[in-house]
Amino acid sequence: MAFYPPADLLEAAARRAVALRRDLHRHPELGLTEFRTASLVAERLATLGLGVKLGREVMDSASRVGLPDEDELERCYRRAKAEGAPLSFLPALAGGHTAVVGLLEGAEHGPVVALRVDMDALPIHEDATQAHLPAREGFASVHPGVMHACGHDVHTALGLGAAEVLSGLRHRVKGTVKFVFQPAEEGGRGAVPMVKAGVVEDVDHFVAIHIGTGVPSLSACAAVNGHLASVKLDATYRGRSAHAGGQPDQGRNALLAAAEAVQALYGISRHHAGRSRVNVGTLRAGSGRNVIADHAFLEIEVRGETEEIAEYMRRRAEAVLRGAALMEDLEVEIRVVGRTTTADSDPELARIIAEVGAEMPGISVSAVPHQAGGSEDATYFMRRVQKRGGKAAYAVIGSDLASGHHTSRFDIDESDMAWGIELLARTLLRLGSA
Amino acid sequence: MAFYPPADLLEAAARRAVALRRDLHRHPELGLTEFRTASLVAERLATLGLGVKLGREVMDSASRVGLPDEDELERCYRRAKAEGAPLSFLPALAGGHTAVVGLLEGAEHGPVVALRVDMDALPIHEDATQAHLPAREGFASVHPGVMHACGHDVHTALGLGAAEVLSGLRHRVKGTVKFVFQPAEEGGRGAVPMVKAGVVEDVDHFVAIHIGTGVPSLSACAAVNGHLASVKLDATYRGRSAHAGGQPDQGRNALLAAAEAVQALYGISRHHAGRSRVNVGTLRAGSGRNVIADHAFLEIEVRGETEEIAEYMRRRAEAVLRGAALMEDLEVEIRVVGRTTTADSDPELARIIAEVGAEMPGISVSAVPHQAGGSEDATYFMRRVQKRGGKAAYAVIGSDLASGHHTSRFDIDESDMAWGIELLARTLLRLGSA
Amino acid sequence: MAFYPPADLLEAAARRAVALRRDLHRHPELGLTEFRTASLVAERLATLGLGVKLGREVMDSASRVGLPDEDELERCYRRAKAEGAPLSFLPALAGGHTAVVGLLEGAEHGPVVALRVDMDALPIHEDATQAHLPAREGFASVHPGVMHACGHDVHTALGLGAAEVLSGLRHRVKGTVKFVFQPAEEGGRGAVPMVKAGVVEDVDHFVAIHIGTGVPSLSACAAVNGHLASVKLDATYRGRSAHAGGQPDQGRNALLAAAEAVQALYGISRHHAGRSRVNVGTLRAGSGRNVIADHAFLEIEVRGETEEIAEYMRRRAEAVLRGAALMEDLEVEIRVVGRTTTADSDPELARIIAEVGAEMPGISVSAVPHQAGGSEDATYFMRRVQKRGGKAAYAVIGSDLASGHHTSRFDIDESDMAWGIELLARTLLRLGSA
Amino acid sequence: MAFYPPADLLEAAARRAVALRRDLHRHPELGLTEFRTASLVAERLATLGLGVKLGREVMDSASRVGLPDEDELERCYRRAKAEGAPLSFLPALAGGHTAVVGLLEGAEHGPVVALRVDMDALPIHEDATQAHLPAREGFASVHPGVMHACGHDVHTALGLGAAEVLSGLRHRVKGTVKFVFQPAEEGGRGAVPMVKAGVVEDVDHFVAIHIGTGVPSLSACAAVNGHLASVKLDATYRGRSAHAGGQPDQGRNALLAAAEAVQALYGISRHHAGRSRVNVGTLRAGSGRNVIADHAFLEIEVRGETEEIAEYMRRRAEAVLRGAALMEDLEVEIRVVGRTTTADSDPELARIIAEVGAEMPGISVSAVPHQAGGSEDATYFMRRVQKRGGKAAYAVIGSDLASGHHTSRFDIDESDMAWGIELLARTLLRLGSA
Repeated sequence: MAFYPPADLLEAAARRAVALRRDLHRHPELGLTEFRTASLVAERLATLGLGVKLGREVMDSASRVGLPDEDELERCYRRAKAEGAPLSFLPALAGGHTAVVGLLEGAEHGPVVALRVDMDALPIHEDATQAHLPAREGFASVHPGVMHACGHDVHTALGLGAAEVLSGLRHRVKGTVKFVFQPAEEGGRGAVPMVKAGVVEDVDHFVAIHIGTGVPSLSACAAVNGHLASVKLDATYRGRSAHAGGQPDQGRNALLAAAEAVQALYGISRHHAGRSRVNVGTLRAGSGRNVIADHAFLEIEVRGETEEIAEYMRRRAEAVLRGAALMEDLEVEIRVVGRTTTADSDPELARIIAEVGAEMPGISVSAVPHQAGGSEDATYFMRRVQKRGGKAAYAVIGSDLASGHHTSRFDIDESDMAWGIELLARTLLRLGSA
Repeated sequence: MAFYPPADLLEAAARRAVALRRDLHRHPELGLTEFRTASLVAERLATLGLGVKLGREVMDSASRVGLPDEDELERCYRRAKAEGAPLSFLPALAGGHTAVVGLLEGAEHGPVVALRVDMDALPIHEDATQAHLPAREGFASVHPGVMHACGHDVHTALGLGAAEVLSGLRHRVKGTVKFVFQPAEEGGRGAVPMVKAGVVEDVDHFVAIHIGTGVPSLSACAAVNGHLASVKLDATYRGRSAHAGGQPDQGRNALLAAAEAVQALYGISRHHAGRSRVNVGTLRAGSGRNVIADHAFLEIEVRGETEEIAEYMRRRAEAVLRGAALMEDLEVEIRVVGRTTTADSDPELARIIAEVGAEMPGISVSAVPHQAGGSEDATYFMRRVQKRGGKAAYAVIGSDLASGHHTSRFDIDESDMAWGIELLARTLLRLGSA
Repeated sequence: MAFYPPADLLEAAARRAVALRRDLHRHPELGLTEFRTASLVAERLATLGLGVKLGREVMDSASRVGLPDEDELERCYRRAKAEGAPLSFLPALAGGHTAVVGLLEGAEHGPVVALRVDMDALPIHEDATQAHLPAREGFASVHPGVMHACGHDVHTALGLGAAEVLSGLRHRVKGTVKFVFQPAEEGGRGAVPMVKAGVVEDVDHFVAIHIGTGVPSLSACAAVNGHLASVKLDATYRGRSAHAGGQPDQGRNALLAAAEAVQALYGISRHHAGRSRVNVGTLRAGSGRNVIADHAFLEIEVRGETEEIAEYMRRRAEAVLRGAALMEDLEVEIRVVGRTTTADSDPELARIIAEVGAEMPGISVSAVPHQAGGSEDATYFMRRVQKRGGKAAYAVIGSDLASGHHTSRFDIDESDMAWGIELLARTLLRLGSA
Repeated sequence: MAFYPPADLLEAAARRAVALRRDLHRHPELGLTEFRTASLVAERLATLGLGVKLGREVMDSASRVGLPDEDELERCYRRAKAEGAPLSFLPALAGGHTAVVGLLEGAEHGPVVALRVDMDALPIHEDATQAHLPAREGFASVHPGVMHACGHDVHTALGLGAAEVLSGLRHRVKGTVKFVFQPAEEGGRGAVPMVKAGVVEDVDHFVAIHIGTGVPSLSACAAVNGHLASVKLDATYRGRSAHAGGQPDQGRNALLAAAEAVQALYGISRHHAGRSRVNVGTLRAGSGRNVIADHAFLEIEVRGETEEIAEYMRRRAEAVLRGAALMEDLEVEIRVVGRTTTADSDPELARIIAEVGAEMPGISVSAVPHQAGGSEDATYFMRRVQKRGGKAAYAVIGSDLASGHHTSRFDIDESDMAWGIELLARTLLRLGSA
């Protein structure tokens, strides 16, 4: 007979999770600068009595790409300190080692079960109007230009909520439960260093989660598949400045080269074998109106339904970038600063999650495979676990959204957090005894 | 018989001018934020015993365009204060009213003669290597991304140097000499408000100057013509963000629209009737790699050999900007943030300057018209003076340059400052008695 | 017990089909100008004793779009005559009414079964080297720039081959077999007028076929799904010519507008809900090197996995085309000249075809749904039949290709024609008795 | 005292010139295919008793660039024959050797004087409406897509008119008068082969003419300067075709590469040192709507106020063309198919022409230098003559135009032909005795 976690334990965990979510939402941190978030997570895990590993212990430093520069790391570190990051854990995260793992050893021997959540925010300006609930209720971002517009604040809170429930039921836990708090999911930079550090080497059952993504409130999908493989590229054009009125022909126009590249990048042909994507998310070029721009910087992302398609897109993107440099007689530097891969959820694992959901009245959990629209580096964890013989699933906790992911009015329905925590807690318990 | 200013007076003025120039070079300020520069100028003029007008007295506030935003004005004002701007003059400049006029009343009645110099710097990163003399000798910019890369620091120092010489020879001055220190020449924003405030309504002879511009050391051109009329435009695209992987079709891509506009702007046809120019000096678009960019901002400048050609370019640029918005189904806002016009030097005035130069051994001053390559809003002063019946000339003080204008290694030969001050002082004296 | 058509009947039909295919391959005709092809088909059907309907009887004249101009229709009509088109049928096809239907009434009452093939060629230059079998064996196209590069010559020959076999077995046929020979499949122009003329109003079982498309020799797919909905657009830019050296600004550059449109068209965002495509197949612009081009003509095609996606692409394409016109201050005319839709094969019908195939040793026929990569206006027939309660399937007769569809060395393996005819003949017989 | 040609001689020549002009206008021929025009010219020169040289005698075959292909040359040759080209001269012109020189030896020894006119038409569709005088009066072009839209028909007629007058006054001619009828001025292809063949090696005074170009009726400019140096480039992209729906990623899109090149070509920076131009006059790409285009062909022209600027433009254009090829991963072939250079008129020669004009009541001829807007390969003749110590001038015979050069309604005022012939005849007589 199934065991049901006590209602008061669940309620307390949910209440705390909502409060924490709002605090994190107010203090969003970009990938690899989650100093405040990760140290708060570590402190909370310790308080709950879990074993805590963090920083270089759970993150292979050399495997990181797309690291912010020294000044930015330093600035964010100081900000975290100023905003109350627990000083006992903060130093271990310095230099952009912002991963945390909590370990809960069960009462009996059993399998290793992992729940993975991510913690980073996005470089988006949060809406400040009364139409936006976080603004209305006072927990909109206080970091200009940074926003939790993808729900990772919710993920972190759900992860800690599940940890809280399980720590209260430790006598019922068999085996080991790992709570994996990953930095830098955006940009596809956080999973690989954690995989390389061995975080999932002993994991038998692995579950990664996401909130929203088009799934409505009170329902969940236990088997998300089809995450796109992706490559993140930074491109820098270096030209030559010149007076735009007096000597325009003496310049080498980096801004123009970038514009030519942008148009041609979006024009890369669709691939017959499956979905492909290309985006130039940001472009910064030039320094003065009357000066031929001598530099331009682009943040690019290409994706494919398979690794092969993503690689086709990357190859074509590089040709385009180099062609524009040739056109304008200047130099381009191209750097790969992130990657994600593909992975499919194991049907058996998805079915178990759906069965757990079926025991929760009012909640609908489907094991039917659901096609993802974006990319996820949780796929690296999944591939590693599956390669070693374990099972992995990527699940979505549904929630009616105020506005889509990656928009300035993104918001979830917080009432979905309670049952989300319960579903995760029950699933981890069940898998422990699986 | 010509009067020669005493050598010791000239030498002292030149020495002080070089020192001041280096101080200004180290603390460059962008247009309409020349709080430190203008207050130093005002203090120096007062010390020399000249009448001083500044701020709203000499600048029609409502005629200003392209004003930095409140935060930026405030930030620069505070910086100026922190960097020693004289507090007796600073408040009058607040809010971007950074113009100064010095008045020297001569011993006898006579014509009104004006010398106009400009004070603003450019948004260029100054070279910090030992190859660049200002870096080597410790007076490179301490304001990151801002640089005196067009010599306005030198202009300001020359203007004060000439004022110093004339204040020492006040008994020889007939009529009135006006020293016009203009802000925001870059961007074509400073002259019109000063003209509108009536600064040159009583001027009989007007001389504007520039250092360098291809004229070698020890020589000057007294009749520069052909400055291009120009219009500065800011364009802002506002689109809609969306997840680049999951919902790309839901976005309205402002970055792509900007790239399309850039290419088409550079493709605007040459004009049969004379020179035309177009430059997109800066482009900032997007906020995150995996988000469809919902905004883009471009700083644009078009120019023409005549007002008609500049207007043709402006009209075509606006069509292009709107066409790109239509292409990507989003909005564009276009604002005119600066203008310059055309004006020719009066030959008689140029001849007088050349005659003055002929009295200075080793210096060669030509009255032959010289074609300018860029734009200048001194032309608004010139047109106004000429319209009222006065004479105007635009003169270049030659100097061998280390690197061209608007480049990160721009530098002049400081030994040209001494004879430059002498030529200006002699010319103002001569015109006073003309 | 299954009936097997006699081997000699099959062999004769196959031999004749190969010969006919080579004749058609040598004399390819573009859509709506298939005067020679269609009149040969009509004559052959009559010879076989089938009822023949053609021209306006089976084609609603007013529903045609993308009709070649009068001169071109006239030119092709005369060429057909000169190349031996049977004069008894040719006049009925005049003006671009190049559809033919053959009717075979069976010995007994029964269902109406239709086989649909297409007859038109592509505007591609056929390879003339010895590496290309049709060139080597002397049946490469004698019409410069026109080529059967998609196998419609084979389709026509297979259709007549099946008709030949069934006419020899008329005593075994129950019900009515319709042989539908459609013009102008390329461009999506031929099906709608035939549907509108009522050609499939009485059809119970409908089968459309294609050769090749990646399916290997000796195998067939009986259930092709996922043909992309498409819209074909012609865009014409009309500008103003001017002397490119003397008065470039007086021109309105249609060639430049077209180039801007092309880049932006390829840059239309992928759609999250499924496959999309865009192609600018041809561009013709300008008349002289030193003249600003006053006209440009583009042939465009957009596609989508659903009608909604195709419509999204069309709407975006029109915005792009109009935006480029606004950019260059000129006019654009946009015309829809063809469409295709989507349709899925009925599984029951596919299963019957697969069962028929299973009776043919050495041939493998699959009823597993197969995803199409391109577009097909046979989908209009399929939708109409299905809407009326009939069943429809789109089948591929596999063949190892020398080079891909729509390339200058496209070629099939002719040995696949014999079993193809047999499979079709058996299927039609079976469906007649179904 | 000046000699005046008899009025009846002038009137007859003018009448005949107008008739000839209309005949030539009706039968326009593109550069290097002027078979009918040149053979008519040769026949007329012979009839007038002048020595005639033509074809390879006056044209260095190997120096020709931009030659039409064999088929086109053959087609035009046959058309000329069909349209009455004199058979006695036609064969010498075969293969695109369509230059003619007429030699008139004077009664006395004297200098060699040359008048150069050009004969070729443009690839422009002539307006056929009643608004256009040539259409209204029945002499609009009967060659579709070809038009005398630059007045070379008039030039040829003026040249023969002047020859007619001088042949009637042979007793007054001193020295030798050369009438140089050049092919292929458009495209800058005809002058160099004639210079290389030595046509102006002995010339002391050289005059080239043009009708219209903005100069009003009854006036002429004797000193046109500033023709732009130019380079004509043909670019061919060769990609790979593919099915646009099924295998778009397998293609190499030549049409897209061409569009990218076009945009970047027009975006080549203006040059500080003087006028520059770029035009892509024609673009032909692709073969079918649903096929990735495997070829694209562009006719390009770049110009500069100096040879250096033209060379800058050519170098930049080639970089752009190659950059687009790199972008789309395909090949580009670039060929130089024509050139023009710069040359200034000799003031002394211009003054003589102006003096001759001053003797003609009602006609105003200026020797003040006039800035040209376009390019001319007459400059190669001028440079050669000047280099050898002779004098050269480029003169414009003014005429009020119905519509600008290179437009479909271009037309001159034929009443300017009479005085034009008189001015030329008088000038040649005067120079002969100079």
